[in-house]
Amino acid sequence: VSPSRTPLGPGAEFDLIRTLMGSDEPLPPGVEVGPGDDALVLEGGWVISVDLTVEEIHYRREWVDAEEVGYRATAAALSDLAAMAAGPVGVLLSLALSKEEIREQAPVLQRGAARACRREGVAVLGGDVTTTPGPSVIDVVAMGRTSSPVGRAGSRPGDEVWVTGRLGASAGAVLLWERGEEPPEALRKAFVLPEPRIREARWLAERVSLHGLIDLSDGLAGDAGHLAAAGRVGIVLLEEAVPVHAGVMGVVSGSEQALGLALTGGEDYEICFTVGPGGLDEHVDGFRKTFGLSLTRVGRVEEGEGIVLEDPTGRRRPLPSGGFSHVQHEEDG
Amino acid sequence: VSPSRTPLGPGAEFDLIRTLMGSDEPLPPGVEVGPGDDALVLEGGWVISVDLTVEEIHYRREWVDAEEVGYRATAAALSDLAAMAAGPVGVLLSLALSKEEIREQAPVLQRGAARACRREGVAVLGGDVTTTPGPSVIDVVAMGRTSSPVGRAGSRPGDEVWVTGRLGASAGAVLLWERGEEPPEALRKAFVLPEPRIREARWLAERVSLHGLIDLSDGLAGDAGHLAAAGRVGIVLLEEAVPVHAGVMGVVSGSEQALGLALTGGEDYEICFTVGPGGLDEHVDGFRKTFGLSLTRVGRVEEGEGIVLEDPTGRRRPLPSGGFSHVQHEEDG
Repeated sequence: VSPSRTPLGPGAEFDLIRTLMGSDEPLPPGVEVGPGDDALVLEGGWVISVDLTVEEIHYRREWVDAEEVGYRATAAALSDLAAMAAGPVGVLLSLALSKEEIREQAPVLQRGAARACRREGVAVLGGDVTTTPGPSVIDVVAMGRTSSPVGRAGSRPGDEVWVTGRLGASAGAVLLWERGEEPPEALRKAFVLPEPRIREARWLAERVSLHGLIDLSDGLAGDAGHLAAAGRVGIVLLEEAVPVHAGVMGVVSGSEQALGLALTGGEDYEICFTVGPGGLDEHVDGFRKTFGLSLTRVGRVEEGEGIVLEDPTGRRRPLPSGGFSHVQHEEDG
Repeated sequence: VSPSRTPLGPGAEFDLIRTLMGSDEPLPPGVEVGPGDDALVLEGGWVISVDLTVEEIHYRREWVDAEEVGYRATAAALSDLAAMAAGPVGVLLSLALSKEEIREQAPVLQRGAARACRREGVAVLGGDVTTTPGPSVIDVVAMGRTSSPVGRAGSRPGDEVWVTGRLGASAGAVLLWERGEEPPEALRKAFVLPEPRIREARWLAERVSLHGLIDLSDGLAGDAGHLAAAGRVGIVLLEEAVPVHAGVMGVVSGSEQALGLALTGGEDYEICFTVGPGGLDEHVDGFRKTFGLSLTRVGRVEEGEGIVLEDPTGRRRPLPSGGFSHVQHEEDG
């Protein structure tokens, strides 16, 4: 792997992504951040990412309406811009919809996508549309810009690991739907109307040197794993510090399961980043006041590799896994 | 529609694409060519386009192997760079594949995509991959660059309309497959291994002022219709001038049907462009010698709107339509 490609963390899903990253050929001129990060960065500060949503895999029709599907797919794609601390410019929308539904649904999905864009002050700038004999597919190209992108690599031993917001609510909603129950509004909203942390990431990047930055789509454990792999460091997550969403306790049977959901549930679309020791302290209050969103130190960077979980006594253990995954992981299993 | 959005030609398929172009809000800063052209152009000359391929709609599994699917989807996306006279930089590949096949097929599709990229001297630079319970979906983001993009608009009354290569072969292959016959190699190759005219478009753009430029994905009639709509002009296609691929006559029952296939079959991935009167004359031989590819004047630009077909006696008639479409049009019908 050449220095221009960013290593991913372990996992079968990421093995597949790795096949798309190409060989270790040098990157073409004008490509400043290459495969393996949250987005490509092109000369001039253009940030480009793509995010694929498939019905039955990423959502079910009984859970969300078509406009929400368009919103959610687009918000998820825009979250990759937050993960580079880039400002948004617009999206391209590719839709594959059934012959019976395409004329009615394409404008509704577009409206949802436009709503996610409008929240960030941007718009849908085109795309492609076709029929399919299968489930609906929404592929969103997010385009943004920044003069100083923050990638996944760059964490250093001694750094602190922080996350925005509270985790596990989206996965909690999925768990309830799969049980045939309707999730309470706070959980449903986390799944259906995620809020990409674009403004939050830019606010932080303007004030603090962010060493490594990623958005939480695969779950804190997996995404911190990417930060560790990209930075060629290890990350220790502090069990008691992980900010589990309050609504999650109503879904699972104990704090261990709630922690598992927060660590591995995925699709939180919060951001996780590393900063030098104490580097964030003077900004925590300002961040909370500005965004009404919590900011939590969840761990630290060490020499080594991979992720471990540390309990309050200092005892370390492997991360809990299995049983809390969203639809895609179940389908993979 | 604001001047920053390029009007499309008529048709139900394009009505759906129009829904993705957004409203007539001004384009964001840094977006130099907006929705409705073959690609977006971002400040710095970056050219971005997306092209969606769905199994059973754009191809059938019995017709092509997985590596060819990856090649073809990527070549089709790269063709949008030819349509802007841009040089290629790389692609992002989004794959939705069945759970049973994903581990085996993702690398094979990637290999096909990489082959289409390598032909242009570029590479796959990442993407997204997921399972699907439905048909395979391949979405390709093509990224290129040029200091002087050529859009669809800009044709002027009196201009000549030209195309590269010969038309109808790809649609001829589909017609044979749908009859249960195996197409001869020349037709099969046109469908399976299209060659985006990137070098050809750049060669031309360096020597001649191209007024309007598009690639032929929807068929000459439809794509010339986009040139006409974008330039707010009419286009007259000369019946006897349309360069029908030699292999097409073996597929259909007469010259009228062959002409129909060449005009409306689609997926030729040649380029069509307009130049001032006589503007290309001194370069036609050089082009043919350089690329071993024909260059044919097929019509002229007039005041007015839309497309008409003119026979050698000067009599005009509407374009033939129906019966020659590729899979997608049949599914739409």
